[in-house]
Amino acid sequence: MFKQIRYKWDAFMNDSALKARVNNIIFDTDTPLGRLFDVTLITFIVLSVIIVIFETAHWLPLWLKPYMHTLEWLFTAFFTIEYLLRLYCSSKPKEYALSFFGIVDCLSTFPAYLAVFFPSMHGLLVMRMFRLMRVFRIFKLFDYMNEGHYLLVSLKEGLHKIIVFFLFVVVLVVSIGTIMFMVEHGKNGDNFNSIPNSIYWATVTMTTVGYGDIAPVTTMGRFLAGVVMLIGYTVLAVPTGIFTVSMVNTDKKRKEIFCPNCGKNIDRDSRFCKHCGYDVEGSKKDAAKKN
Amino acid sequence: MFKQIRYKWDAFMNDSALKARVNNIIFDTDTPLGRLFDVTLITFIVLSVIIVIFETAHWLPLWLKPYMHTLEWLFTAFFTIEYLLRLYCSSKPKEYALSFFGIVDCLSTFPAYLAVFFPSMHGLLVMRMFRLMRVFRIFKLFDYMNEGHYLLVSLKEGLHKIIVFFLFVVVLVVSIGTIMFMVEHGKNGDNFNSIPNSIYWATVTMTTVGYGDIAPVTTMGRFLAGVVMLIGYTVLAVPTGIFTVSMVNTDKKRKEIFCPNCGKNIDRDSRFCKHCGYDVEGSKKDAAKKN
Amino acid sequence: MFKQIRYKWDAFMNDSALKARVNNIIFDTDTPLGRLFDVTLITFIVLSVIIVIFETAHWLPLWLKPYMHTLEWLFTAFFTIEYLLRLYCSSKPKEYALSFFGIVDCLSTFPAYLAVFFPSMHGLLVMRMFRLMRVFRIFKLFDYMNEGHYLLVSLKEGLHKIIVFFLFVVVLVVSIGTIMFMVEHGKNGDNFNSIPNSIYWATVTMTTVGYGDIAPVTTMGRFLAGVVMLIGYTVLAVPTGIFTVSMVNTDKKRKEIFCPNCGKNIDRDSRFCKHCGYDVEGSKKDAAKKN
Amino acid sequence: MFKQIRYKWDAFMNDSALKARVNNIIFDTDTPLGRLFDVTLITFIVLSVIIVIFETAHWLPLWLKPYMHTLEWLFTAFFTIEYLLRLYCSSKPKEYALSFFGIVDCLSTFPAYLAVFFPSMHGLLVMRMFRLMRVFRIFKLFDYMNEGHYLLVSLKEGLHKIIVFFLFVVVLVVSIGTIMFMVEHGKNGDNFNSIPNSIYWATVTMTTVGYGDIAPVTTMGRFLAGVVMLIGYTVLAVPTGIFTVSMVNTDKKRKEIFCPNCGKNIDRDSRFCKHCGYDVEGSKKDAAKKN
Repeated sequence: MFKQIRYKWDAFMNDSALKARVNNIIFDTDTPLGRLFDVTLITFIVLSVIIVIFETAHWLPLWLKPYMHTLEWLFTAFFTIEYLLRLYCSSKPKEYALSFFGIVDCLSTFPAYLAVFFPSMHGLLVMRMFRLMRVFRIFKLFDYMNEGHYLLVSLKEGLHKIIVFFLFVVVLVVSIGTIMFMVEHGKNGDNFNSIPNSIYWATVTMTTVGYGDIAPVTTMGRFLAGVVMLIGYTVLAVPTGIFTVSMVNTDKKRKEIFCPNCGKNIDRDSRFCKHCGYDVEGSKKDAAKKN
Repeated sequence: MFKQIRYKWDAFMNDSALKARVNNIIFDTDTPLGRLFDVTLITFIVLSVIIVIFETAHWLPLWLKPYMHTLEWLFTAFFTIEYLLRLYCSSKPKEYALSFFGIVDCLSTFPAYLAVFFPSMHGLLVMRMFRLMRVFRIFKLFDYMNEGHYLLVSLKEGLHKIIVFFLFVVVLVVSIGTIMFMVEHGKNGDNFNSIPNSIYWATVTMTTVGYGDIAPVTTMGRFLAGVVMLIGYTVLAVPTGIFTVSMVNTDKKRKEIFCPNCGKNIDRDSRFCKHCGYDVEGSKKDAAKKN
Repeated sequence: MFKQIRYKWDAFMNDSALKARVNNIIFDTDTPLGRLFDVTLITFIVLSVIIVIFETAHWLPLWLKPYMHTLEWLFTAFFTIEYLLRLYCSSKPKEYALSFFGIVDCLSTFPAYLAVFFPSMHGLLVMRMFRLMRVFRIFKLFDYMNEGHYLLVSLKEGLHKIIVFFLFVVVLVVSIGTIMFMVEHGKNGDNFNSIPNSIYWATVTMTTVGYGDIAPVTTMGRFLAGVVMLIGYTVLAVPTGIFTVSMVNTDKKRKEIFCPNCGKNIDRDSRFCKHCGYDVEGSKKDAAKKN
Repeated sequence: MFKQIRYKWDAFMNDSALKARVNNIIFDTDTPLGRLFDVTLITFIVLSVIIVIFETAHWLPLWLKPYMHTLEWLFTAFFTIEYLLRLYCSSKPKEYALSFFGIVDCLSTFPAYLAVFFPSMHGLLVMRMFRLMRVFRIFKLFDYMNEGHYLLVSLKEGLHKIIVFFLFVVVLVVSIGTIMFMVEHGKNGDNFNSIPNSIYWATVTMTTVGYGDIAPVTTMGRFLAGVVMLIGYTVLAVPTGIFTVSMVNTDKKRKEIFCPNCGKNIDRDSRFCKHCGYDVEGSKKDAAKKN
């Protein structure tokens, strides 16, 4: 009896024809069925995210809540099945499970179950948002994908600088916070009542966010605050500079082409390599002919 | 009887001489009459916009309101007639109606009538503002037009990146909002009382606007807020970078010159075309001689 | 009798020796006397500005006020005499009077007298600040002067774009303000109580200043506000872009040098003109010899 | 007796073997012992900073304070000994004492003692933060060091411009503050109650911080404020521009290569030096062969 089930299971797990069919529907985005599936998926994701967000809105009519709850569970069920099917039909399950999309799919599905026991984890369902990045894949927005990739590369090039910059900002913010604490402490009701709060104030000011929930009142404090703002502004011009430069560089790299003969970097529009005189255009034509 | 009217109407509609005359006044900006007309138009537009805006100002003396109301209706009448005349005298009415200026003219005139039935639409009259772009045409500020065009081109070049960037920001803001909701919910009177509000807070913070109508109070919340601000600042350095790069590129393109022989793009200071070896300078001199 | 005075006056007005002496002291900054004079001047300017500013500070001990008042009048007297002397001893009085510094000197002296009759004009004395730019001249901070000039040039290059940009922002802000007025009007106590106030709010938000004195409360309003912030942020990345590009260009121009033979732009460090093969370095040496 | 001590002291002070051993532990970061020492040091620094910061947090349980106090004194003792040892074992004590790290070490240790008499100086202990920069040295994050250096160089290049810019901003802020004081004074409860406060407001607005603790209420004031914001924004695009340009330049310099023969700066991709005609590539190949 048990043996039989097990046998069936093995058969199911090895039914490559079925796998292929499922794969077509779930992973493929060219077949009409696959497309239909993907579009439904996107719609479900958007809906489920909206539900998670608005479940907490106090101004929603009460009678709506149960419906939203049911819907959410339906979505969760759907996503679970989808995830299992993805695991099932992909030729290399492990690879998928550890791929970016695999992890996102997992994280955006199972918190729903944990949330039963730990309600506070309920918000994690917003992770589902990230699945929307599928939209790029589906609608063949490769160009956008490239742009995204391009941005990432630029950010990466500037990463080291940004980290150093942040360390610097942290030190600055802590120091300023402490100084302001000494100046304003006790002058101003409950503001600047501790160094951590003053540091919070310094961050709010340096980043030019400026809530105003904490603000200096003494003339000395206000003078210092003014100085901090000006310093802050200049300091915070740095990341923009860093990022712009790294973008310019990435942009250049992207536009560079290389001589197929001497491998040196040449202008996009040059007919002959300016280094070795190799006939670049000619070779292109030959390549074209061959194909 | 009816036939007669209809006949007159046709005559009127086909009176090309009259059309030409009207056209001169309305569309032409070189003839003194045309110029006069345009200047009056601009003044009327400015006045009507000012009226729409200040009609709502509570600190205006009451006795003014009726006058403003009358004036507004006069302007609307004037604009309506103008619009009809434009349709009448333009050789290709459809084309005008669907042109940028045509649509703006339409949208900035007819809401006035709808506003009678739907007062809330009254504000749409501010659309009239857009008509002010005529000012460029009138005062022959082509140079400015170019600059505007230049900005648009730059923005367009960076558009794809900006869109990807926005999608990213939206995901970020939603996630941060949700996390802060979990951290601050209930700690802080009525703030962070729902995820939508927390998302609103996250946007306010990430964009460094920082109203302070919602602000964290717990130490944990404030620490997170600080992190968000720093992240936010760096992330929001991205559009500046994107835009700067695309502007640099547009700027370059604009300064490029092309070989009069092979039409390929060459360096400003090259004596011979690097593509076809054509004597660029020589040809310039010849051209100079001819003039 | 009167004749005599008049004669003396003429004599005084034409005493070029005296003029020269005064000129040395007032305009010259190399002679010890001139230097001394300039330093005193700067000190007086700073002091007088500080007085003007702190005269209004409510937290100053009352007994100080009269002294400040007396001091201010002394400074004014000093500045008046100085101004007259400048007019007297400069070879071309008109030219000085209409020069930048001449106008600043005038505007920073005479409001003091008008302030007797129109107290509200008293604040104009802060104009004296501008006189501090003399500090550059005195301490021979030519390099700084250059930098300042450099910044101005860059700003000028981007001016047209900036103007177009501002017109655009104004239109945007007015439109957004009106829309928010329709959405939030009456929902929110006294906020958004008129379109002008909504426009004010829109400006505060678009520029990421965000006072929070006016803030949306309805979900719709907050959603719109979020959109405005993101738009605003991107839009306001434009001036940075504009300015950066124009600075890059100015920077380039500044570093360019031209071949004395063919007048074409060549690299700073080239020994021979890459266009006409002219011996650039050689010619430099010859020039050096000649001097 | 005293002689004996003195003798011992001299012996100790001249015991170069001991010095070497200590030096290994304290300054060296490659030996296991040295590494262990450095890591402990870092941990202590972090802990002591955290203590200084949170000592003021009102929401900490009271019973914790004494422990924190004791810990802090232990740390101070440890740092004092460390500092003395550094002085002792370094071959050139003076040089170390006056080196950047030397000064930081000193400033981050002795305020603890002064704080006993002047409690207000207690906050200075946050100086210890700066010692964290050691972390770079320890974990051999030379690359990061470089980036940091790179940023500094860029900032330095733009320094002159930034200073001019700041002088300009200060003048602007003072003038605007004064004007707003004239416009808003007395209209608005206790806001704009003195020119210094108005200047503070102007700074808060120009830097787009916008606390909202002071905000205009009159229509005129709000209009002016709007103008100030737009001006402010554009003006504050300047440092970003300055910094970006100087970063671009530093970036270029960094990528330059020089002719091994005449040492002049040449293009990355040039085959022969454009100054002396030296065969750059050839020499490279030779170098490659040798290795």
